[in-house]
This record gives sequence, structure tokens and C-alpha cells, in this order.
Amino acid sequence: MTDVTTPRTARNGVDVPTLFATLDAVKASPEIADFRFRARNTWISGTHNRTTIQGFYGAGQEDTSRTEPFVYDADHPAVLVGTNQGPTPVEFLLHAIAACLTAGLANIAAARGVTLHRVESTVEGDIDLLGILGLDAGVRNGYRQIRVSFAVDGDATPEQLAALVEQSRRRSAVYDVLTNGTDVVIDVTAG
Amino acid sequence: MTDVTTPRTARNGVDVPTLFATLDAVKASPEIADFRFRARNTWISGTHNRTTIQGFYGAGQEDTSRTEPFVYDADHPAVLVGTNQGPTPVEFLLHAIAACLTAGLANIAAARGVTLHRVESTVEGDIDLLGILGLDAGVRNGYRQIRVSFAVDGDATPEQLAALVEQSRRRSAVYDVLTNGTDVVIDVTAG
Repeated sequence: MTDVTTPRTARNGVDVPTLFATLDAVKASPEIADFRFRARNTWISGTHNRTTIQGFYGAGQEDTSRTEPFVYDADHPAVLVGTNQGPTPVEFLLHAIAACLTAGLANIAAARGVTLHRVESTVEGDIDLLGILGLDAGVRNGYRQIRVSFAVDGDATPEQLAALVEQSRRRSAVYDVLTNGTDVVIDVTAG
Repeated sequence: MTDVTTPRTARNGVDVPTLFATLDAVKASPEIADFRFRARNTWISGTHNRTTIQGFYGAGQEDTSRTEPFVYDADHPAVLVGTNQGPTPVEFLLHAIAACLTAGLANIAAARGVTLHRVESTVEGDIDLLGILGLDAGVRNGYRQIRVSFAVDGDATPEQLAALVEQSRRRSAVYDVLTNGTDVVIDVTAG
């Protein structure tokens, strides 16, 4: 209670004044909200391949804040005729939805003045491989269902904490893509 | 030309006999195609969080082939009020689609007897953050469009190589989820 007169500039590790200043900047210049993210993938062998993520365009310019690239391998496990050099591509979808909902939750909690103590989630996705194996035309290729289970502790009622997750869902980019789909265009230069 | 009598068991790093044996095993026992993948995420601070991926259920049992977990951080860049401890969640979607299409391409090429020399892809995703920032109800939260550009070299005509990519698209789990969406269920234990 000794810091009651100290301006609170961060909560949950979120710089709240900067968060609101960013919102104000976008309100004043909506065009800076146009972002283009990128990834580059190189095949290595079999189902093993590697993605590099670094630059993106946003806020009116090319971002240069990442001094090193992020590098991620993907592969299949032996049971799917791979060599376990990385998770399967579909498991990265589970990471993406958990990470997006969790980041949003921390931001929304900070904006609402709620201090979080713990946020953990488990994600499960059910998939029937008869689809991708081409063995049953009635089975889809992708997940039949994805389930995300959150455990959240913080300085608010259980109802308020659950409402933070719900608001994060309503504003989640990954949730939107995974539930509503998006346009995916593929082109090939061969030879 | 000295190995013309050697049985060819691998192409593109794909163990083709095992690939076909796996297909036969699933045809004989379709229930082994039911898979459940999992991820576990822990919030660290602000938009920074960490996912662990290791076990999954498939082929009628819990997989134990991964002796170490795969661990991935996600975060926002400074321009989005984060600290760059990892890519954004939406960038992992770009990794997932490139990795899935590339793994399928290698398998399909091997099954068709096509030797690949190089597969590279770049992925871009356009997103207008007015959606997730709650500043324009007419703008979606997720990507407006994702574009995947492949460069493929191999021992086949450009048309045949392009057809491999097309068949991979038709059998891609990630492409299906990203274009058609899926059911996502979220629950919360709070307090």
C-alpha cells in the first residue's frame, strides 16, 4: 500500500498508457492499422521443413525491431511417416489459438484494471486422418473440433475473469480465422 | 546408374513403402485414423506466453515417441505493445499453412515417383487491426487474405510439379481449417 500515489503505468506486464495511446493513434490515422505479416518456408526432407519469421509491414512502415529471425521446424511423427523434427503443422494451429486468446486476455484485463495471477490453457483438436489420407470422401481434412480450456486466477470475481476470456474471444484474430475461415490463394512457380 | 537393381525405398526423404503400408493399415482398421492433438499454454507477462507440445493420441494409443517437448513463445512486437519474445499468434498460422502444404507435397511427389530438388514458399497475410482493436465493426478480426507462393524444382514438367501442389492443397488439414473454419469451443475455470 506504499505505492498508492505512484502512477500505475503497467498491469499484467501490459504498458496500459501505451496501449491506450496506440488506440488513440489508430483512431486518428486508421490507415496505420493495415498490417501484412510474412513467413518463409524451406523444405528439408520428407515431411520436415523449416519456417523463418522476421519482418512485417505495419503502422505505415516495414518493421525492423526484430534483430534475429524466429525459426520453427515442422515434421510428422514416426506413426505418420515422419522423423519428429518438429510438431505437425496442425499442432501449430493449437499454439496459435492459445497464444492469441491469452495475449488478448492479458491486454483486456489490464485495460479493465484487473490484475492476473495465472493464466493457463490446454487445447485439444480432434482430426480423423481418413480425410487427408483420401480414404473417405465424407471426412474433412481438418480438425472436426478444437477445444480450449482456460484456468484463470486474478483479482476479480470468477464471472469477471470469465468475461475477460469472452471479450478476448470476441476480439481474437486467430479465433476468427479458425472459426470463420479466410481466403487462401496459392500460386506455383515450377521448373 | 549402378543402383538400378537396388529397391528404391525412399524418395524425397519419404519412406514410400512405409507410407503405402500405413495407408493399407488404415484401410484395414479405419478407427486408427482418429487422432487428438494437444498443446498447453502458460501466460508469462503482457502479450508474452509459451506453448508446450509433446504428446498426442493416435493410431489407437498415446504417442510416446517425442522424448522432449517442443516449446514455442508468442508475443507482440513493440509497435503492438509487446516485447518481441516471439512471433505474433497470427504469424504461426502462416507457418502452419506453409508447413502443411510442403509436407503433403513431398509425400505426394514421392508416391508419384517425382524427385524434388527444392521447395520454397513465402506466405503473406493481410490484416486490418481496426477489427481486433474494436475500432470498426465492419472489419473482421482475422486475416482478410493469405497468399502462399511456391517455388518448386524437381524431375517433372512444370505442369506435373504444379499438380503436386494442387493435390497437396486438396489434402491439406491446415488449408481446410483456414479456408473452411472449424468448431472452436472455449471453457473457463476462474477464481
